[in-house]
Amino acid sequence: MSRDSLEDLARRAVAASRVLAIARTAAKDAALLHSADLLLMNAGEIVEANSTDVAAAESAGTAPSVIDRLRLDGARIQQMADGLRAVAALADPVGQVVEGHVRPNGLVVERVRVPLGVVGVIYENRPNVTSDAAGLCLKAGNVAFLRGSSAALQSNLAISAVLRQALGKAGLPEDGVLLVGDTSHETARQFVQLRGVIDCLIPRGGAALVAMIREHATVPYVIDGDGNCHVYVDRSADLDMARRIVVNAKTSRPSVCNAAESLVVHAEIADRFLPVVSSDLVEHGVELVGDERSRAILPAIAAATEEDFGTEYLALKMSVAVVDDLDAAIDHVVRYSSGHSEAIVTSDLGAARRFVREVDAAAVVVNASTRFVDGGELGLGAEVGISTQKLHARGPMGLTELTSVKYVVYGEGQIRT
Amino acid sequence: MSRDSLEDLARRAVAASRVLAIARTAAKDAALLHSADLLLMNAGEIVEANSTDVAAAESAGTAPSVIDRLRLDGARIQQMADGLRAVAALADPVGQVVEGHVRPNGLVVERVRVPLGVVGVIYENRPNVTSDAAGLCLKAGNVAFLRGSSAALQSNLAISAVLRQALGKAGLPEDGVLLVGDTSHETARQFVQLRGVIDCLIPRGGAALVAMIREHATVPYVIDGDGNCHVYVDRSADLDMARRIVVNAKTSRPSVCNAAESLVVHAEIADRFLPVVSSDLVEHGVELVGDERSRAILPAIAAATEEDFGTEYLALKMSVAVVDDLDAAIDHVVRYSSGHSEAIVTSDLGAARRFVREVDAAAVVVNASTRFVDGGELGLGAEVGISTQKLHARGPMGLTELTSVKYVVYGEGQIRT
Repeated sequence: MSRDSLEDLARRAVAASRVLAIARTAAKDAALLHSADLLLMNAGEIVEANSTDVAAAESAGTAPSVIDRLRLDGARIQQMADGLRAVAALADPVGQVVEGHVRPNGLVVERVRVPLGVVGVIYENRPNVTSDAAGLCLKAGNVAFLRGSSAALQSNLAISAVLRQALGKAGLPEDGVLLVGDTSHETARQFVQLRGVIDCLIPRGGAALVAMIREHATVPYVIDGDGNCHVYVDRSADLDMARRIVVNAKTSRPSVCNAAESLVVHAEIADRFLPVVSSDLVEHGVELVGDERSRAILPAIAAATEEDFGTEYLALKMSVAVVDDLDAAIDHVVRYSSGHSEAIVTSDLGAARRFVREVDAAAVVVNASTRFVDGGELGLGAEVGISTQKLHARGPMGLTELTSVKYVVYGEGQIRT
Repeated sequence: MSRDSLEDLARRAVAASRVLAIARTAAKDAALLHSADLLLMNAGEIVEANSTDVAAAESAGTAPSVIDRLRLDGARIQQMADGLRAVAALADPVGQVVEGHVRPNGLVVERVRVPLGVVGVIYENRPNVTSDAAGLCLKAGNVAFLRGSSAALQSNLAISAVLRQALGKAGLPEDGVLLVGDTSHETARQFVQLRGVIDCLIPRGGAALVAMIREHATVPYVIDGDGNCHVYVDRSADLDMARRIVVNAKTSRPSVCNAAESLVVHAEIADRFLPVVSSDLVEHGVELVGDERSRAILPAIAAATEEDFGTEYLALKMSVAVVDDLDAAIDHVVRYSSGHSEAIVTSDLGAARRFVREVDAAAVVVNASTRFVDGGELGLGAEVGISTQKLHARGPMGLTELTSVKYVVYGEGQIRT
C-alpha cells in the first residue's frame, strides 16, 4: 500500500465507505475481534518492523521521550488488542433513531444516526493510534484513512496490514483501513485538502500539527486541543478533600491534557490551605510559581509571569493565584482557560452552580479530579481524542462523535402547497 | 457602529457572550418580542434606509433579481417581525440535560446543552437575514456577529440598531447583536479568521462566498450547500402519486435548494410514466434534458450532458435518466447527489428501506416531495440554513444546531487512581 498514490487511496476510501456504512454490527465486531487476535499472532513481526523505526529514530538522535512513544513491545500490542476487543463490546451507534415525530400533514420524520463516511486521522509517532483509531472508526461504520508519521511508517504498515487482513476475514472491504504510505509534508497537505473524500479529519499530535491543519485543511476537522486546566478551591471547600484533588489532578499523570496546571485559591482560606497543599505538591516534586498574594504566604516560590498562567506545562510545575471571591475566581479561570477541564472544590451549592454555569469548558468538575475527563472514565468506553472546540464534538470523542445523522421522511404522497 | 474596528467589535462580542450565555429565557423572549414591535414601529425608517441601498444598486446596474432580494417593504418587515415572534415561542434549548448517568465510583456525569458563544453570520444581499439570524442566535444564547454585504449596509444598520435597542430594553447587552460596518473584502477575510472569537461561522450566500470561506476561514464553520436533489420513481410506484410529487418537487419553487433537479425513472415503467410526467412538467414551463434512454421515449427533449446531471439549475429545467433497476438508481443518485435531499417514490418496502439506508444525504424522503426538507416543515420551528456537511449539523439547522454541550461532573472528593 505504501506505493499507492493519494488519489487512488482516496477513491478506494470513498468506495469502501459505501459498503462499511451499511455493514452489519456482527461483521464489524468480527473484524475487530479478528484484528485483536491477528495483532497478537503477528506480534513478533510487528515488533520487528517497529525496531527498524526505533533504530532509525535513535541514529537520527531523536529525543528519548519520543522514542518511548514510538516503541512497541508485547505489552503494548496486548493493550492494542484489548482496546479493539473493548470497542467490539460497545453498542453500535449506527441506525439509532435519535428522534422522531409525526407532522400535522402525516409526514413521519426521523433522525437516524449514520456513519460520517471517511474519517481522516493524521498523527505523530505513536503507532498504537493506528489500531485505536481504526477500531473506533470501524465500529462506527467509517473508513479509517490514516496518515501517520514517517518515523513510525514501518510499524504502521505492519499494523494496518493486520487490520486489513481482519476486515477481509470478516467479509468486509480491506480498504476500510487505508494507510498513506507517502509521509512527505506535501502529501500531508494534500491529505488535509481531500474535500469530498474526508468527511471528518482528526489530528492527534502537538501544536505544530494543529497549526498545519488550521492553515491548510479545507476538509472539516475536530481539534484535540490543549488543556490548561484549573482547580479552584473555594472558601467553603473541605480542605482535606481539596488537597487530595489538587495533588491527584497535578501529579497522577502530569503529561496528559486533563492534568491540572493552575491552582486558584480563595483569599479567606489561602493562609491555611496553601502551606499544606504546597508541602504535598513539593513532596511530589512539583515546582510552584505564584502571584504576589500567594508568594506572601509561600515566600519560597518564584513569581509567576502572565505567560505562566496561560501555559499548559504538561510537567511537574503549577501556577498559583489567590483571588478575593468567586467572581474573581471565575474571571481568572475564564481568562486563562483553554476550554478543556475546569474544577471547583466547594461545599457551597450556590458557588458550585455558578461555576458550572459560567465557566465555559468542555468539562466542568465539582469536587473531583480533572483527571476524570477522559472517554473511559466518563463512560464512553473509548475515545479518539478530547475536543476543545464547540462544533460537532466537545470533550471526549467516543463512537457517537464519529457519527452524523440523516433525516428520514416517510409520506403517502404529500406535496407542499 | 459602522466606524468601530473589527478588533473592538470582536472584544465586545466575547464580553457580551458571557452575559447572554446565562441569560434567562424570559429576558431573551422579551428581547425578541421587543424586536418585533420595534421593527414594526420603525418600519418607515427601515424602508427609507433600504431605499438608499436599492437606489445605489439600481444606479450600479445590479440585476433585477438581486434588487428584489435587497428590497424591503411593509410586508417583508411584517414577515421579519412574525419570524422573531415565532422564535420567541420556541422552547429554549439552553440548559437541557441531554444525557446523564452515574459512574461506578459515584461520579455523576451530565451533558448539558450550552450556547455556542459567538456565532458569525456572513451573508449577501437579503437584509431580512439580519433579523432572522439574530433572532435564532439570541434565543440560543449566542451573540450574533453579523457581516452583511456592502449593498445592504444601510438596511442592515437600521435593522441591527432596532435589535440592539430591544436587547437593551430587555436588560440584555446591546452587543448581543453586532454588525460589521466595514464591508470591504479585506475585513471579510479578517472576520472569518477571528479564532478565539467566532465559535461557529455560518455563510448565507452563493458559491463565491462559500469558496472564500473554504479558502480563508480559520474559524469553525457550517456550510449551507447546494441541493442537486433527485426524485427516483421506482417500478412499483403509484404513478399518479409520482406525477404529483415530481411536479411539486420541481415547480412549486424552483429557485430553492430543496427543489428537485433530476428525475430518475425505472426502465419498466418509463414508457408509461415519462410521457405523462413530461407533459405535466412542460405545462408548468419546465425544460427537460435527458439521457439516451429517456430520449428514446421523449424524442422532443434535448440530450443531457454529464454536466447537466451534476447541475443545480434552481430554475425550470430538469435532467432525466432511465435506469435498469434499484441498484442503478442508487448508483446514479449517489454519483450526482450533493448530499442535500433525495426522494424515492415506491410501494415496495424493500426498495424504500434500501434507498433510505444506502443514499447518503442530509434527508432521504419516501413518497413525498423534496420540498418538505426545510426547518419549518420538519418541525424545527425556524432554520438558519440547511447544512450539507456531516459535521455538527446536517439538514435544516434550527436552535439545537446553534448550541453545543458541556460535560458537568459532580463528585464527593473522588480522585483517579
